[in-house]
Amino acid sequence: MKRWTIVVGMMLFLILALAFQVADTKTDLLRILDLQKAAWNRQDIEGFMAYYWNSEMFTFQSGANRLRGWDTLLERYKKSYSGENWGILDFTDLEVNVLGADCAYVIGRYKLILRDTAREGLFTIIFKRFPEGWRIIHDHSS
Amino acid sequence: MKRWTIVVGMMLFLILALAFQVADTKTDLLRILDLQKAAWNRQDIEGFMAYYWNSEMFTFQSGANRLRGWDTLLERYKKSYSGENWGILDFTDLEVNVLGADCAYVIGRYKLILRDTAREGLFTIIFKRFPEGWRIIHDHSS
Repeated sequence: MKRWTIVVGMMLFLILALAFQVADTKTDLLRILDLQKAAWNRQDIEGFMAYYWNSEMFTFQSGANRLRGWDTLLERYKKSYSGENWGILDFTDLEVNVLGADCAYVIGRYKLILRDTAREGLFTIIFKRFPEGWRIIHDHSS
Repeated sequence: MKRWTIVVGMMLFLILALAFQVADTKTDLLRILDLQKAAWNRQDIEGFMAYYWNSEMFTFQSGANRLRGWDTLLERYKKSYSGENWGILDFTDLEVNVLGADCAYVIGRYKLILRDTAREGLFTIIFKRFPEGWRIIHDHSS
């Protein structure tokens, strides 16, 4: 086998490996969003929060408010949503963009159907891969 | 020199190189935001747009609207802002987060002082480094 065929073969292998890795990441992140949706819809706030980075450095921007820390977001959700007015959550128009082996972002639309009304908007969430798995390190909703 | 001192030295060098790279990226991105602000404030829309990724794949989310493509954003700005109602732009509360050698995101607050009113809100912008330099590949404002 000539040397250039080995080089071309190795390059093809690397390109394919990268494409498979990107596809895997997309599948992983869409699965996480499905798990979050399912957790929310069975009123399991801890299950929903499990994919947010449990850190003081986690940030959440919504409208004109910035909030910092996993605990703060949990508290906000607990205050804002209760048994009767919990709502049914759905995500649509999802697009996953892989930035590297350990970082990606997802854009999408959320819809929360409440008893008397519905809340709808867009989000951008940034994911980072930690030894324990992918976690949302920043969320911007509007 | 013992072998372990070489290994420790190399590790320290790598850690320092990485820290300097992160610091460099932060400086570069804050400089870009300064240049964008200056371009906006002299009503130079092309100068302002120069740091957005000139691609059909660029995305912009604002409120409940998603917009796609550099040209579409330029058109929107040209329609929404004119000589008299251009406004003075400022950015505050900026935080740069470096995700890797070629990707980072910045969160911040914008304030646009118009003739009779002011528009204010938060943004999350995702940067990618291209051969031609850092470009914003996604912008979410609220």
